[in-house]
Amino acid sequence: MTTDTPRTRLSPEARRAQLLDLGVSLLATRSLDELTIDVLAEEAGISRGLLYHYFGGKREFREAVVRRAIDDLVAQTAPAESADPLERLVESMRVYVDYVAANFEGYTSIVRAAAGGNDTLRGLYEEARTALTDRIFTEGAQGDLVPDTPAARLAVRGWSAMAEELVLTWVAEPGEVTRDQLVEALAASLPAVVELLH
Amino acid sequence: MTTDTPRTRLSPEARRAQLLDLGVSLLATRSLDELTIDVLAEEAGISRGLLYHYFGGKREFREAVVRRAIDDLVAQTAPAESADPLERLVESMRVYVDYVAANFEGYTSIVRAAAGGNDTLRGLYEEARTALTDRIFTEGAQGDLVPDTPAARLAVRGWSAMAEELVLTWVAEPGEVTRDQLVEALAASLPAVVELLH
Repeated sequence: MTTDTPRTRLSPEARRAQLLDLGVSLLATRSLDELTIDVLAEEAGISRGLLYHYFGGKREFREAVVRRAIDDLVAQTAPAESADPLERLVESMRVYVDYVAANFEGYTSIVRAAAGGNDTLRGLYEEARTALTDRIFTEGAQGDLVPDTPAARLAVRGWSAMAEELVLTWVAEPGEVTRDQLVEALAASLPAVVELLH
Repeated sequence: MTTDTPRTRLSPEARRAQLLDLGVSLLATRSLDELTIDVLAEEAGISRGLLYHYFGGKREFREAVVRRAIDDLVAQTAPAESADPLERLVESMRVYVDYVAANFEGYTSIVRAAAGGNDTLRGLYEEARTALTDRIFTEGAQGDLVPDTPAARLAVRGWSAMAEELVLTWVAEPGEVTRDQLVEALAASLPAVVELLH
């Protein structure tokens, strides 16, 4: 623990949060498998032992980073209250596209780990998806874009899978589609799909 | 190998194909993890040793079953040549929905294994997806539903992720949406999404 010499003295909670932020930033360009205690120790300039003290273990560290990354995504894509429903969705989609582009490696690996049967990561991922899609039904101060019915909830679930696939594919290979075209299509496809399942 | 006493004498190839068919039918109500050489040996009434002889090992056996299951899905959903493009798509979607409903356990586990990082299964899954979506561009004897452009290919990729999610979610919990409503919405959403990305 002798290498733990931060310039300012932080509370353990603040220090842990700072390390998680660093973990999230490392995850941007690394897969989950590549995000190790060793990498964090090197980047943070502190001992592995202290990191184990903060996080308990490799698995717990990764899960804490994923939780933090997801919280960031949910917070960043929170729509402005003032705009009309479709404009709010456009803005959220714009932030989402930029987020995935900026965090491609880590985000892809989280999606894969969640889909592939890691129950804790799947739980976190489902929580995030619920948080991201529930707001479509609940944050409608200026009118609803989508009615809250079982059919519409099914439609939103399908739409969110499409949105994720479109953004991941587009970031890997944008081709002739511009960011604005993608964002507009993502937003406009939601009411279209809901309407078709109604 | 003494328990291998089929009533009719089959060539090794035909016998292997028969065992694969049995494996596929077992996969309908089992996850991939639950599909073992032991289960197949019991159901087929033949020795584990002979099954290892036919398939080489547990992993090879599972991969062969998945390949066979995917071939079945692609063959079953092959559209009739006669109908107009949208009607062909509706018919393919109807077969797809029924296929997933009839093979829910196995299909879900294949999707998860493919998404989660098993490279061979992901390769098979991507092959299947390509086979299922390529026909949208190539089998247009009576006119095209979708133009073959990079933007349209991106749209089809997103749409197929949505279709899979919608069908898996609907089979698990149909709610108020009927099979016909789902099938119609799946088919109609394809040109809608392509149009939005154009």
